[in-house]
Amino acid sequence: MKPSLLIVAHGSRRSESNDEVRTLTQRVRSISDNRFTAVTCAFLELASPSIPEGLEQLIHDGASHITVLPYFLAAGRHVVEDIPAEVASIQQTHPAIAIEIAPYLGTSATLPELMVEVGSGSSQAG
Amino acid sequence: MKPSLLIVAHGSRRSESNDEVRTLTQRVRSISDNRFTAVTCAFLELASPSIPEGLEQLIHDGASHITVLPYFLAAGRHVVEDIPAEVASIQQTHPAIAIEIAPYLGTSATLPELMVEVGSGSSQAG
Repeated sequence: MKPSLLIVAHGSRRSESNDEVRTLTQRVRSISDNRFTAVTCAFLELASPSIPEGLEQLIHDGASHITVLPYFLAAGRHVVEDIPAEVASIQQTHPAIAIEIAPYLGTSATLPELMVEVGSGSSQAG
Repeated sequence: MKPSLLIVAHGSRRSESNDEVRTLTQRVRSISDNRFTAVTCAFLELASPSIPEGLEQLIHDGASHITVLPYFLAAGRHVVEDIPAEVASIQQTHPAIAIEIAPYLGTSATLPELMVEVGSGSSQAG
C-alpha cells in the first residue's frame, strides 16, 4: 500500500496563512501522481487539525504507512523536538502503523536554486 | 549596479539552525552566477545580524539596491508585519537606497514539486 503524506506546518494566528498551507496541500495532492494514498495537512499549533488529529484521521481512513513531512525551513526546536514528540505519542498508540518523518523541507538540495529565482524576480515594495 | 540579496530568516535558539541558514546563504551565493553584488543573511530575532544590521552592512559596503528575501514558508505575522516594518525603518534612514522585499519563499510555484520529492524520499524515523 502506498504511504499517505501528512504535511505538518507551524500554524499561524492569521487564518489566511493556514489556508495557504491547505491550498498548497491540495496542489501537492494534485501533482503527486498517485504516489500517495492520501495527502493531508496538520498544524503544530494555532490551527486545526493538530498533528495527533491529522494522524488519527489518516489511520481511521485506513492508512498503514504514513510519511510526515515537516513544512519547515530550518531545524529549530519544532523540527528537532516538538514534531517527533507528537509523532511518537501516536506511534505508541498505534504500533502496527508505520509512521516515518521525512527530512524537513529546508534540507532539499533544490532550495538554493528556488531562492535565486525568487530573489531575482522581486517586485518593488516601497 | 546589480542588486544585493539579503536572505532574512526567523532565527532560532539553536545555533546549528542559524548556521544552517548561513551555509545556505553561501550556497545561494555560489550558484547565483553573479546575479547579485552580494548575498548575505540576517535574522528577525534570536540571532545575529539583525535585519537593520544586515541592511546597514550592505549599504556600508556600497549597495545601492537591495532585495530582501524572506526565508519563510507562509505569510504569518513575521512576513506581513515584522519584516516590512524593519525594512521601512532602514529605508527612512537611507532614502536613496532602493530596498525591495521579494515574495517570501513559500510563494514559489516550484515548491509543491519539491515537497513531493522530499516526501517520497523519506527515511524511517521510528
